[in-house]
Amino acid sequence: MLNFSLHNPTKIYFGKGEVKVLRDELRARAKKILIVTGSGSVKKNGIFDDVIEQVKNAGCEYVELTGIHPNPRLEEVSEGMKICRSENVDFILPVGGGSVIDAAKAIAVGAKYSGDVWDFFDGTMEPENAVPVGAVLTLSATGTEMNSNSVISKEDTKRKLALSTPLIQPVFSILDPVYTFTVNKFHTAAGVADIMAHVFEYYLNPLRDTEIQDTVAEALLKICIRFGKVVCMKPDDYNARANIMWASTLALNGTVGKGKISDWTCHAIEHEISAIYDISHGAGLAMILPGFMKVVLEKYGPEKFTAYGNNVWGIEGESTASESIDRTKKFFGSIELPTSLKESDISDEYFDLIANNVVQVRGKSDIFTQLNKQDILKVLHLS
Amino acid sequence: MLNFSLHNPTKIYFGKGEVKVLRDELRARAKKILIVTGSGSVKKNGIFDDVIEQVKNAGCEYVELTGIHPNPRLEEVSEGMKICRSENVDFILPVGGGSVIDAAKAIAVGAKYSGDVWDFFDGTMEPENAVPVGAVLTLSATGTEMNSNSVISKEDTKRKLALSTPLIQPVFSILDPVYTFTVNKFHTAAGVADIMAHVFEYYLNPLRDTEIQDTVAEALLKICIRFGKVVCMKPDDYNARANIMWASTLALNGTVGKGKISDWTCHAIEHEISAIYDISHGAGLAMILPGFMKVVLEKYGPEKFTAYGNNVWGIEGESTASESIDRTKKFFGSIELPTSLKESDISDEYFDLIANNVVQVRGKSDIFTQLNKQDILKVLHLS
Repeated sequence: MLNFSLHNPTKIYFGKGEVKVLRDELRARAKKILIVTGSGSVKKNGIFDDVIEQVKNAGCEYVELTGIHPNPRLEEVSEGMKICRSENVDFILPVGGGSVIDAAKAIAVGAKYSGDVWDFFDGTMEPENAVPVGAVLTLSATGTEMNSNSVISKEDTKRKLALSTPLIQPVFSILDPVYTFTVNKFHTAAGVADIMAHVFEYYLNPLRDTEIQDTVAEALLKICIRFGKVVCMKPDDYNARANIMWASTLALNGTVGKGKISDWTCHAIEHEISAIYDISHGAGLAMILPGFMKVVLEKYGPEKFTAYGNNVWGIEGESTASESIDRTKKFFGSIELPTSLKESDISDEYFDLIANNVVQVRGKSDIFTQLNKQDILKVLHLS
Repeated sequence: MLNFSLHNPTKIYFGKGEVKVLRDELRARAKKILIVTGSGSVKKNGIFDDVIEQVKNAGCEYVELTGIHPNPRLEEVSEGMKICRSENVDFILPVGGGSVIDAAKAIAVGAKYSGDVWDFFDGTMEPENAVPVGAVLTLSATGTEMNSNSVISKEDTKRKLALSTPLIQPVFSILDPVYTFTVNKFHTAAGVADIMAHVFEYYLNPLRDTEIQDTVAEALLKICIRFGKVVCMKPDDYNARANIMWASTLALNGTVGKGKISDWTCHAIEHEISAIYDISHGAGLAMILPGFMKVVLEKYGPEKFTAYGNNVWGIEGESTASESIDRTKKFFGSIELPTSLKESDISDEYFDLIANNVVQVRGKSDIFTQLNKQDILKVLHLS
């Protein structure tokens, strides 16, 4: 096990009706709030009204930034930064899924910086200050509700990069499984694939001596498989939504990752694809993961995949390793996610560019797979 | 799943040599430190010297309170409170196991209170202020390193009670598995039993719809069983010590408990026994747990025990529920813990007093088993 530090001060409020805590949380820390939302679904399903009621109860003023896209864009972030400055915003409250929260996090550091906020994402500068952020989550997927990460896309250069700093960690996050009832089948399924991909980015690391992290990771994968189908078939099943929602948080709040080297090559490949094609992140991961697994199996041997097959899928025998990958792909198919790039009309046109960008981005951080450009091209062709 | 809030701001530094972070952590927050230790083993094995080096590097002064007993006593806490006041202590640094850290936590609230600190433990008063605490852990067991609990004994009335308040949550805890290498076989084994007992206090709850908590709980139990034997046989096995150390923290930091009703009847029984006989807490739990499980099985049916047998012990068949209890008892025996009260020379002399006290203490909090006095007497006779 590697040495690690873990500090996760986000306060979680989990369960039906927990939006009520917003009043006291906001009253204690905010005068003027920027509320960030996405395509407008929260205004149709009543969630926005619930939030506004508490904002008013707290005696806070608010301004709005709406229309954040999936794969949130730099210009949307810039718009939010301008509002923060002109309106003297002292708290940012995203109400939405991972994209809305990630945009809010980027706005939080950008609003306190006179330069280009992209500097923080491409690593040119380190942020030093941020407007505090608290979140109301409406989609189980990215885990951003309890970590210090944000991922933003830059349209003109077709890049999608991540920033990680404690400054943007939400001070609180409200997780009400009922708020995910209206998420459609496709985005629900894509969220499940995203959660599983986060676990895999740690779990597949061939580093040994991390049995506790790996056994907990297997527990989360079992929950995703068991309840992933249920949430797609019965969108208003509270228990299934609750299990998936808490899995999304535990998958990326340090519980399964601390003490291991993570990889993020699979995420990096997907980021490059969705920067070009603007596909849903979780669906992109579902397409890439089985091909990625095959290349990792070939390079690093069957040990981890055999354990995955035994402990998560309950399969035994000589072909367990490769069968565990087939089962993963079939599972994604069973919740109606695309299982090949072709299904999403993605040809090999940009494969070379994608592979180049992945190697370049990924080179900056600790990784275990050390996939080279040829390996990444192989992943893409297998997908 | 029940609604819950989770806020765990303790900063964890995990791994070999992490004591080095003490310098900056102390420099940032302390001028005069009360260092709390136990029987003196940290002065023999070099851990105390490591700590003092960093205290000096931080430029802090320090005073000492030594000799904290297992099942720490109120008079030891009072002594620490006096030192804090007379020496203007602004930070408390326990270096030891759960008893030392729990004593430090009690001192932290007591030092800021003009009345009797026991008021906080018997529920007469709520603490409002505390001296900050940071911990250097040397025994994997209680989980106190990352939670807001403290348990103290009062000798004259033979009572052992718990306090829970965010005020005493350590601001940081240093977890170096090497620091547990010198723990002897008995206390190592007792620690493993304690960790497992914490998991069971949540896991055995027959409440359904908590699959994610229960699957993660099973993961921790598997780790305890797998590495519990190793740490007893090979005390300097870093990986085994690391797995057990992180399991001790995860067992009681909210990961497996939030969203469930916990019980703590088994702990309450053990507290009453060790308040009278001053036995090791973990050993007491090992003696009580199988009997407690048998009574719970009888009252609430086999469902949870069958799942436990299937998923943790890998056993199937009609008698899985009762066999899972037998396996648990055998496991405790295999790591040379006492498996009956008789082995520790505990007769039925105080059974009636113990059962009365348990019902009285336990009545204050949410519990699932609702064991009455007769049930508790049955647990005692089965143990």
